[in-house]
Amino acid sequence: MGWAGTFIAVDWGTTNRRAWRLEDGAVTDELEDERGVLSVGKSEFPAAVQQIRECLGDHPLLMAGMVGSNRGWVEAPYVPCPAGLDEVASALCWPEAERTAIVPGLSCDRPDVMRGEEVQILGAVDAGLVPRDAFVCHPGTHNKWVTLEGGRVTGFRTVMTGEMFSLLKGHSILSDLLTDDMSVDEAFCDGVRQGLQGDALTAELFSVRAGVLLGTKRKRDATDFTSGLLIGADIGSSLKGSTGEVFVMGRPELTQLYAAALRVAGRTASEIDGEAAFLAGIQAIAGRL
Amino acid sequence: MGWAGTFIAVDWGTTNRRAWRLEDGAVTDELEDERGVLSVGKSEFPAAVQQIRECLGDHPLLMAGMVGSNRGWVEAPYVPCPAGLDEVASALCWPEAERTAIVPGLSCDRPDVMRGEEVQILGAVDAGLVPRDAFVCHPGTHNKWVTLEGGRVTGFRTVMTGEMFSLLKGHSILSDLLTDDMSVDEAFCDGVRQGLQGDALTAELFSVRAGVLLGTKRKRDATDFTSGLLIGADIGSSLKGSTGEVFVMGRPELTQLYAAALRVAGRTASEIDGEAAFLAGIQAIAGRL
Repeated sequence: MGWAGTFIAVDWGTTNRRAWRLEDGAVTDELEDERGVLSVGKSEFPAAVQQIRECLGDHPLLMAGMVGSNRGWVEAPYVPCPAGLDEVASALCWPEAERTAIVPGLSCDRPDVMRGEEVQILGAVDAGLVPRDAFVCHPGTHNKWVTLEGGRVTGFRTVMTGEMFSLLKGHSILSDLLTDDMSVDEAFCDGVRQGLQGDALTAELFSVRAGVLLGTKRKRDATDFTSGLLIGADIGSSLKGSTGEVFVMGRPELTQLYAAALRVAGRTASEIDGEAAFLAGIQAIAGRL
Repeated sequence: MGWAGTFIAVDWGTTNRRAWRLEDGAVTDELEDERGVLSVGKSEFPAAVQQIRECLGDHPLLMAGMVGSNRGWVEAPYVPCPAGLDEVASALCWPEAERTAIVPGLSCDRPDVMRGEEVQILGAVDAGLVPRDAFVCHPGTHNKWVTLEGGRVTGFRTVMTGEMFSLLKGHSILSDLLTDDMSVDEAFCDGVRQGLQGDALTAELFSVRAGVLLGTKRKRDATDFTSGLLIGADIGSSLKGSTGEVFVMGRPELTQLYAAALRVAGRTASEIDGEAAFLAGIQAIAGRL
């Protein structure tokens, strides 16, 4: 059943793309580059797809992420929640018949949308990495908090925590304070505790600058404290009404920060590698074709 | 007492500067340009000050704002709260003896800092535009909420509402939705009501984009709704524990938005023109020299 044998899985985001050649479930080659959706003109997608095949072989292609958005190649309409692998697989969009498909994103009533994370989340369930009823946190530019019931996504909420940190780091009055690498240290945990208190983030952020100016905060703690503050505020608001373990899925450098912050908040957190979850999900969808 | 006769008052901010020639309390000439502090190198300030005198005459100069910050000409150390006109006037910094002075900013224990707004706020009290015991909102890039007791500033809190809107408009996933001019309309008031509920701002912001994508929100409402959302969140958190009238001071296009939002929140709001308040304050300080 499905695409037997060899196909190419693509995770095509806003600023990057990754592709894997899968042969009978095993990765035999891969590529990663910065040809994200925003760097590819609408008419250039066929050539950009052809380039993947030139690298990894002339095989069927199953793609997920922003390539299916209104800024991507062909828009794959959102599948409304509740949705599991069956709903997603039956709503694929086919830019090239039988050879090239795009996985749709999910929508929910909040209103909210996701594109790409659903493959990881449903893949992790399918692979037994996450229970069929679970609360998942998927940190990234747009952090997703996702409720799973019976193996399907029943609702989710996006928090712009990663994007907010980039905006502050790149363009704000705090830019010259946010120059260090992030790490889980005492300043980070202090920031998390402050963020968990639920005061207005936009007020707490300015006090980072004021604290450095007045000498009550060290400049070298500013990056970690601010990162902790943003993540703490995110967690404090997103955990409301939930109990139990949180499964944190995505890039290890981010899941590590969120798992540490969740522990500061007194919650149990398990980290799931986003790449493994993506490969499980994309194969589960290919298996339904 | 004080600088009798003629002097030049300067409000020198990050991106703009304004100067007024005051003769016996009356403005007889003025200039405004984009030579804000960030566009002037440390060594270029004497020439930039000379340029003001070439325009408005060779008179004593009293300056306020970011020109006294660590990015300005000479750093005028913050005066700790509680502080009124006497404390501010006695802590002036003099880059040129008896001819050119810089008004210091204020600090408080939160920790927090302000530079420039204190002249307007204390000036408004001195001119009887605001009672000696009052709660003042000063919207801008960094919105200030200020408590006045007995005519002195006893505490304040900065909320980065204006800067947050600029960051979102200039550099975020919402940029292409935030292109309209702002106005007080139904979308703005809806945003204020949503913001007042105190949910995580970073989550509510993303739902603006999701709502437009899913067709539940109109693109042309996005600017006003987002502006309302940010101001509503600011007000909701900043009004906690306060009662009574709020005096909103600053540029009329901003005081108008905040006054409207305060009314949505069920509060009485009076608007005070920031320029009139600044001129009152700078003359009250000059009168103490």
